Amino acid sequence: MPLNNGWGEALNQKDKNFLREFSPDRRYLIGVSGGRDSVALLHWLHGLGYKKLIVCHLNHQLRGRASDADMRFVAKLADAHDVDLEMRSTNVRALAAKQEISIETAARQARYTFFAQVAKQKRAQTIFLAHHADDLVETFLINLFRGSGTAGLSAIRETSKRRVDGVDLTIVRPFLGIWRSEINDYIRKHRLKFREDASNKNLAPLRNRIRWRVIPHLEKTLGRNIRQSIWRAAVIAAEEENWIQAQLANARDAELSVSILRELPVALQRREILKWLRSRRIANVGFDVVESVRSLVDHTVAKVNLPQGRHVRRRARKIFIE
Amino acid sequence: MPLNNGWGEALNQKDKNFLREFSPDRRYLIGVSGGRDSVALLHWLHGLGYKKLIVCHLNHQLRGRASDADMRFVAKLADAHDVDLEMRSTNVRALAAKQEISIETAARQARYTFFAQVAKQKRAQTIFLAHHADDLVETFLINLFRGSGTAGLSAIRETSKRRVDGVDLTIVRPFLGIWRSEINDYIRKHRLKFREDASNKNLAPLRNRIRWRVIPHLEKTLGRNIRQSIWRAAVIAAEEENWIQAQLANARDAELSVSILRELPVALQRREILKWLRSRRIANVGFDVVESVRSLVDHTVAKVNLPQGRHVRRRARKIFIE
Repeated sequence: MPLNNGWGEALNQKDKNFLREFSPDRRYLIGVSGGRDSVALLHWLHGLGYKKLIVCHLNHQLRGRASDADMRFVAKLADAHDVDLEMRSTNVRALAAKQEISIETAARQARYTFFAQVAKQKRAQTIFLAHHADDLVETFLINLFRGSGTAGLSAIRETSKRRVDGVDLTIVRPFLGIWRSEINDYIRKHRLKFREDASNKNLAPLRNRIRWRVIPHLEKTLGRNIRQSIWRAAVIAAEEENWIQAQLANARDAELSVSILRELPVALQRREILKWLRSRRIANVGFDVVESVRSLVDHTVAKVNLPQGRHVRRRARKIFIE
Repeated sequence: MPLNNGWGEALNQKDKNFLREFSPDRRYLIGVSGGRDSVALLHWLHGLGYKKLIVCHLNHQLRGRASDADMRFVAKLADAHDVDLEMRSTNVRALAAKQEISIETAARQARYTFFAQVAKQKRAQTIFLAHHADDLVETFLINLFRGSGTAGLSAIRETSKRRVDGVDLTIVRPFLGIWRSEINDYIRKHRLKFREDASNKNLAPLRNRIRWRVIPHLEKTLGRNIRQSIWRAAVIAAEEENWIQAQLANARDAELSVSILRELPVALQRREILKWLRSRRIANVGFDVVESVRSLVDHTVAKVNLPQGRHVRRRARKIFIE
């Protein structure tokens, strides 16, 4: 367990075993906003001998001139480390409006699209991201309070795969066991410059409230290190999710078989249905929708409603979308 | 999803499908503290035709005369419903001191010992308990903040099995989808009398703080129905836990095989080790202990320390306790 032992020691002592898979001689992308976390990650990896990094920076155009200043800052940073640089500018606000999604979701989507394109172009499909232990804890709580169930509870993993626009990205987060305060120590120790607001520019109001109000209040009221506890729960849940996903059928058929579903335990029925609905591009699938589709398995109903006026039907032992 | 629709309607409309397994003609135990939840449960089950109930009341001797008054109240209640009654008195405080466990843990242990003895004597191994949706949410948060990992996150299920002193108890919690406010409505509608403090007499300070301070603060700060969201997460986690447990080897060998462990995904390694340590009667097993035993799988160490001066060793591809 990471503990804050001052002056960046946590980062020096970090178990680097899991990095063995990722030889410093190969080329990697690294997401750099210019904020303290990604600046520390770039510096740390570079110090470990990763010299063929490709800095990827997306200008989200959310803060006007400040966003432009972030770009210039990141360009200088890449130059100082003597590594490659890829930058793009996307109007995230317009993207969010067009697709009717939140700014945070649009920003993430735009970043991954950008990462995938750079990955394809540079033939380097592994990207380092600077998510840390506090991000993991905050994300766990956000998903918990939103009611996304365990699949959502374990969204961030140290190493994960993600298929984006036909590109199989491998995402590596070396700081997932490192706390924000430890990154701050590292920044101070090495006197690194960073853009103060760049890290927070895409913070959703919910994340802000959880970071600045909920977690401090919980720690004060309960008088214990709840972040450590939530971190453990998130790490365990992530591994279990990993394994449960591996158990799921990989079929993306247009129809679900009632008899196959009925053989599964409830936990897997839920996952299969969720995965199937997503593969059929049904948006905003929550617990209620999954449960109503699951009711089709038990013959009590033959049709359930979906968002956007669509529905799911059962006929001839098959479940399908109309 | 249960919603508060006033005057006990939630209880009348509750899906009683899962009760089908439990025919009203058989005999069942029911745990009755005399508090509002168990009073409502007794009244509700009785109204559904469960006439062969055996009311089980344990006097925890924690509140002196008030505890005695609870006993008299429960005795009258059983009489009014014309059902059997089993009562016992246990000095829970002394039990907690002797075993060096919390009052809450000792109380639970004493209750289950009592339930198991009544079950054996009466040859009725199914017991109804009055845990409701708020209890589930509180327990989920308690386990989360304590860092017990997902196994702990899903401690309460609608129907579960528990082996106590050689007796296989089936525990049924019909109110797990019913909120405290809905039980209050039911109590008011039927003008039921209950013992105000009986429900809360064994509340641990942590549960109290979560009930009265943490949850209200979360709902106020986040402005959303987080209890509903946490309830969903807990229900999903419970089913997954159910299923994961079913995947685990049932072996209670003195030794763990390194080669078998190595074949398992990390999530199952953790569960197997946890289950094995518990079966070897190693108390207070947390994430750190499980992780250090798990490190034996990877050959990096040959011995790790356990609480109470014991340790786990690896030798000849076996892991065992010394």
